[in-house]
Amino acid sequence: MSKALDGSPESTDRGRSKTRWESWIAEAATAREAAGLTRRLRPRGPGDDTIDLAGNDYLGLSRHPDVRRAAADAALLWGGGAGASRLVTGTLRLHQELEHELADWLGQPTALTFSTGYHANLSVVGALADRSAHVVSDAHIHASLIDAVRLSRAQLTVVPHNDVAAVRAALAARPGVRTLVLAESIYSVLGDEAPLTELAAACAEHGALLVVDEAHGVGVHGPGLVHRRGLAGRPDVLVTATLSKSLGSQGGAVLGPGAVLDHLVNTARPFIFDTGLAPASTAAALAAARVARSGPDLADTIRARVTALARALGVAAPAGAVLSVPMPSPEAAVAAQADLLAEGVRVGCFRPPSVPDGVSRLRVTAGAGVTEEAWERACKAIDTIVGEVR
Amino acid sequence: MSKALDGSPESTDRGRSKTRWESWIAEAATAREAAGLTRRLRPRGPGDDTIDLAGNDYLGLSRHPDVRRAAADAALLWGGGAGASRLVTGTLRLHQELEHELADWLGQPTALTFSTGYHANLSVVGALADRSAHVVSDAHIHASLIDAVRLSRAQLTVVPHNDVAAVRAALAARPGVRTLVLAESIYSVLGDEAPLTELAAACAEHGALLVVDEAHGVGVHGPGLVHRRGLAGRPDVLVTATLSKSLGSQGGAVLGPGAVLDHLVNTARPFIFDTGLAPASTAAALAAARVARSGPDLADTIRARVTALARALGVAAPAGAVLSVPMPSPEAAVAAQADLLAEGVRVGCFRPPSVPDGVSRLRVTAGAGVTEEAWERACKAIDTIVGEVR
Ligand SMILES: Cc1ncc(COP(=O)(O)O)c(C=O)c1O
Ligand SMILES: Cc1ncc(COP(=O)(O)O)c(C=O)c1O
Repeated sequence: MSKALDGSPESTDRGRSKTRWESWIAEAATAREAAGLTRRLRPRGPGDDTIDLAGNDYLGLSRHPDVRRAAADAALLWGGGAGASRLVTGTLRLHQELEHELADWLGQPTALTFSTGYHANLSVVGALADRSAHVVSDAHIHASLIDAVRLSRAQLTVVPHNDVAAVRAALAARPGVRTLVLAESIYSVLGDEAPLTELAAACAEHGALLVVDEAHGVGVHGPGLVHRRGLAGRPDVLVTATLSKSLGSQGGAVLGPGAVLDHLVNTARPFIFDTGLAPASTAAALAAARVARSGPDLADTIRARVTALARALGVAAPAGAVLSVPMPSPEAAVAAQADLLAEGVRVGCFRPPSVPDGVSRLRVTAGAGVTEEAWERACKAIDTIVGEVR
Repeated sequence: MSKALDGSPESTDRGRSKTRWESWIAEAATAREAAGLTRRLRPRGPGDDTIDLAGNDYLGLSRHPDVRRAAADAALLWGGGAGASRLVTGTLRLHQELEHELADWLGQPTALTFSTGYHANLSVVGALADRSAHVVSDAHIHASLIDAVRLSRAQLTVVPHNDVAAVRAALAARPGVRTLVLAESIYSVLGDEAPLTELAAACAEHGALLVVDEAHGVGVHGPGLVHRRGLAGRPDVLVTATLSKSLGSQGGAVLGPGAVLDHLVNTARPFIFDTGLAPASTAAALAAARVARSGPDLADTIRARVTALARALGVAAPAGAVLSVPMPSPEAAVAAQADLLAEGVRVGCFRPPSVPDGVSRLRVTAGAGVTEEAWERACKAIDTIVGEVR
């Protein structure tokens, strides 16, 4: 965002006619505007009175005193950046400490840190799959995994959401081909859970590798659902995670067998050709993991809140921290979001093309980061405003 | 990195035979080992006695007191992470401040910040190019731009390094097709400069858009070479940059016309589906930009050092801060690197496949971040050890 991104229309220099590129950009903007799908950035301050139920800081750890302090201390001790690629001089003992902590918490043999969760997903698929590999992907997986598969040039089978029979059929259709199966433990838009036990069994039978993105599972379910389902540490189950949601920081991680992570270190382009994660972000995630591990209270708060609000709204309780409330139209979703903001409650809004099924939704994070009193006030407002529309 | 990444070979559980995936991973590791190309992570501490001429913290700003302090203060004020995607609640006033500062410094109408330079490059190409577009790319461009083009599915013409006639021929071959031309202002491996003025003229004549990756140009040449060549602010020249080299932090940026950046905000997947840059990293880059702008001394120091060392070694002085010293073999490069480390000087080493022409090189950063005394000591060691081999 900056000068011309705050709404003022750009005009070309006087007298100069538009270039081909300028016309193309302008046409795309006009089409977006006509479809009511223009997105604008709305910068926020460091603290405001609005009750924030829109973000992914599920446990509220970004603002935990231990996390802020750890990030600040790391910046003072190590400096602003890692200074180089992880393979040159950009691997810090701090990265190693975080990797040990995450591996230990999630019950995995080893962990490797990345600059973003996006990089982690691009790296795993890119390093393991190529033209000769087969990828079986759930229809609802995240943009980063979709991009990853495209980049890898692997043969792709997209299966209907959470359809284990379809996964089995896809695996059976290409026996002997090196295959990755991609799933999220908890899906971002619908907030539902993957049938991890069944998927792992199917993969084991067919010699496939299961990659589970735990972006919305870790923290919300303690060490994540792969661990909860007893699948952590299996040689044919890899976990990817982000440090930017429950861990209140920035970055990503891949967890699994050491031999696989060594392979990533040697071949994953978004790991090799990228600067190491900044010291402050590394330390923030480490401190957050320690707070999250120290007790189940935050995760329990989320379960209680999400269940109660879902019941009040008459929607199914999600497996994760995010309540997805279907709305009759994109306009209704945007209007309800604005009404809630006027009441001091910020919620998210999913509209096409960010929804796999075209249904617009309010996205309400039942996080542990707001006080009980703020949460009650927010629920009352949601109940009133959303109740009127649905 | 973690438990099993520190060298101990992984064995499968007793009695269990290897899965297809385990065999594939093991074979790849064996092949790497046989070719002498295994890479291992070597974690470093927050400060050691080694003179570091291997990183990309060209101006030494990662450790500047203003930068450390700004990062620490931002972590304390804003928390560990941005908490959400930039389009939800992850856009901070701090991002906006950085974007204004960068745009102003680099002489561009607008700027947009990303989580990594890699994300910035993936975003620009992905949002502007598609199957119907044509991308003309220099043969030496960075992995992130290569991945970006692959992801975009655009028609690709790779032209020989710094060959303007070949760029012109590629543009002439597809008149009327929306075309991006990709270059780096200073190339990472050879350290040479792109013929920016000529490339911009060719693009203007053919209605193409020139994208210049200034990862190694900003800071080392003040506001960068696009600005130095009088090309900043042109509607047909876009700049991408990283915050992780001269700006001593982490993250990336794209700079150019507001309409183009609005287009990125609305369509670039690695921007939309990613968490905003962490507060500490944002503040570190902002403080570093202010220090870098406040005087030319750091950039001058780099020019003087790079020129003197190049003369001493009998190689051509590079346009950037990195001296690339061709070595007779990968083994000779690795041996010289080890000898220098024994003398307390850390330099980098380029071996296949990270070199566009297959020639192994020592990579010596003539940064402004080491003291004059350390620099002199390092030069003496380099002169002796490299002089013997070449
Ligand atoms: C399922 C999933 N995977 C990966 C990511 C990317 O993580 P990051 O924001 O750390 O890049 C996200 C969201 O941002 C996500 O929802
Ligand atoms: C030319 C070039 N572009 C982009 C990048 C990626 O930047 P970042 O490390 O911020 O992801 C790098 C190096 O890391 C680079 O050398």
